[in-house]
Amino acid sequence: MPSSNIADGLPPLALALGDPAGVGPEIAAKAWDRRVEERLPAFFVVGDIRSIEAVWAGPVVRISEPAEALGVFDRALPLIQLEDAGEIIPGQPNVAGARCSLDSLELAVGLARSGAACGLVTGPVSKAQLYSIGFAHPGQTEFVAERCGIARENAVMMLAGPTLRTVPVTTHVRLRDVPDIISPELIISRARTTERGLSRDFGIERPRLAMAGLNPHAGESGALGREEIDIVIPALERLREEGIQIEGPLAADTMFHPRARARYDAALCLYHDQALIPLKTLHFDEGVNITLGLPIIRTSPDHGTAFNIAGRNQADPGATVAAIQLAYRCAGNRARSQ
Amino acid sequence: MPSSNIADGLPPLALALGDPAGVGPEIAAKAWDRRVEERLPAFFVVGDIRSIEAVWAGPVVRISEPAEALGVFDRALPLIQLEDAGEIIPGQPNVAGARCSLDSLELAVGLARSGAACGLVTGPVSKAQLYSIGFAHPGQTEFVAERCGIARENAVMMLAGPTLRTVPVTTHVRLRDVPDIISPELIISRARTTERGLSRDFGIERPRLAMAGLNPHAGESGALGREEIDIVIPALERLREEGIQIEGPLAADTMFHPRARARYDAALCLYHDQALIPLKTLHFDEGVNITLGLPIIRTSPDHGTAFNIAGRNQADPGATVAAIQLAYRCAGNRARSQ
Repeated sequence: MPSSNIADGLPPLALALGDPAGVGPEIAAKAWDRRVEERLPAFFVVGDIRSIEAVWAGPVVRISEPAEALGVFDRALPLIQLEDAGEIIPGQPNVAGARCSLDSLELAVGLARSGAACGLVTGPVSKAQLYSIGFAHPGQTEFVAERCGIARENAVMMLAGPTLRTVPVTTHVRLRDVPDIISPELIISRARTTERGLSRDFGIERPRLAMAGLNPHAGESGALGREEIDIVIPALERLREEGIQIEGPLAADTMFHPRARARYDAALCLYHDQALIPLKTLHFDEGVNITLGLPIIRTSPDHGTAFNIAGRNQADPGATVAAIQLAYRCAGNRARSQ
Repeated sequence: MPSSNIADGLPPLALALGDPAGVGPEIAAKAWDRRVEERLPAFFVVGDIRSIEAVWAGPVVRISEPAEALGVFDRALPLIQLEDAGEIIPGQPNVAGARCSLDSLELAVGLARSGAACGLVTGPVSKAQLYSIGFAHPGQTEFVAERCGIARENAVMMLAGPTLRTVPVTTHVRLRDVPDIISPELIISRARTTERGLSRDFGIERPRLAMAGLNPHAGESGALGREEIDIVIPALERLREEGIQIEGPLAADTMFHPRARARYDAALCLYHDQALIPLKTLHFDEGVNITLGLPIIRTSPDHGTAFNIAGRNQADPGATVAAIQLAYRCAGNRARSQ
């Protein structure tokens, strides 16, 4: 089967393998195993070949240029080899592995930036290990943004599943701090980026957004909190003046059932769990994290390194398959819109 | 078909119709319409017959004693008539209707307390209308608790759907206030009541509870907030010392997918939307509110008066059917356990 990339005129996708001792290598290889049934586009991985050989018996071919992946992909997993990552034992992360995951990410970002890859899928990394080697970003997203010359506050995380997309306006902050962090400006910025992303990357002509309230029943007109009145409603008014379609603030508990979801293309949520609870309740094994607002396409399976099951052939590649499919679809949409 | 109540030796259920201008009368009548297919136990409604006649053409028979419902239920909806509720126009609530809904609730509670009804299902009321006639309780639950001689803080709301039960530790408070309201004592009290309710009313011999954390990723060992360490974990330790099975604090976003739900009988959540988002995302049309910790069984469909569709034959009786079935099942379990 010839790769769809050739017909589409798109270069291959780059997959950064993440931490070599985590499940990243295994799920990348297992995703390649499903290339026919899942109609996957050509991709290549960036990492240490030994991290794959430690957990998978399939064919791997080293390539030196992304374009070679198009010819290799049908018969083997194409790989760009990094320097020695030190000792690799699945489930046992170490400092050399953290360096390897960072090198892999950096190289893959560069290839996507240059256009040699049509987009980037990032595997799970260990933040604790990265911090121990001096990594100064909260996560991979901020690192990718910096390498793309984008201010980190303009790189927006969206979680996407088959029937729901959510965007958390605030992410990894204490719940206690959320009411004081949210502002009309922050909501407006996230909504604008979300709207542009839905249009440019998802190919949705007139995106429909929904905005959650902060308090129970969206504050009941102020009886249960004033953030809706003081912060959310002013933001929505300005967004509507700009021509952005956004409804809300909606009671968060009644906006995620099937009939409600049919009314919008993405839901903006004010805090981490407001966005992640519905997404993972519905789409735990197929949730994709996509970063909007970047000059490149970047997606990621929405799970961690799972060191506890690494090397046991238990990891499910479903989210990685979904991340590959979504990255490629977005790359195509963006190419067509340019 | 003879009512299952006779075989079970249980009196009928009492249904308070709620606000006569809301959807309560319509969904009660439509639930009766489904009595055969849904194998409903005998129930009677308490309210003004005109509120039903305004929206439904089926047979209604006035009764004066709950026990009469057992003979009537097969052929007509049994009703205990209240005094005149004033003018009734579906969709247009008024003060007389609020009084009627309160009288209906009070009479139905009394019948359940006396044992003449095996349990109580309460229809939706308008809090705004009730407040305007001097109703001094936050909602029906607190009123029922008081009439049962139970302190309101010991009456615990559980939301129950076919695959998930959740208990919010705090309910209708501003999100901003949640971190300061939660305490080990509050969590312990809610967990004890939940465990007893699952055992006594749901017939679960060794209930398994799960406790959500407050912050993203349950606080990541203190990096994203300390409430898990300072409040939740001490509460769980004391509960385990008492022999209560409870796991947690769990990351709230990963505890509601199907495999996670299979591990517990009820999830304790720290705030309204943490409990209500997953429940309504999964079971919007069949969610039942059950009050634990009362000497009587009390359930309620988990939706409001829906004045906007009252009288248009659009209301879905699914949640009322589920509330009737759950109340009857709990009444049977409780009778057997005594």
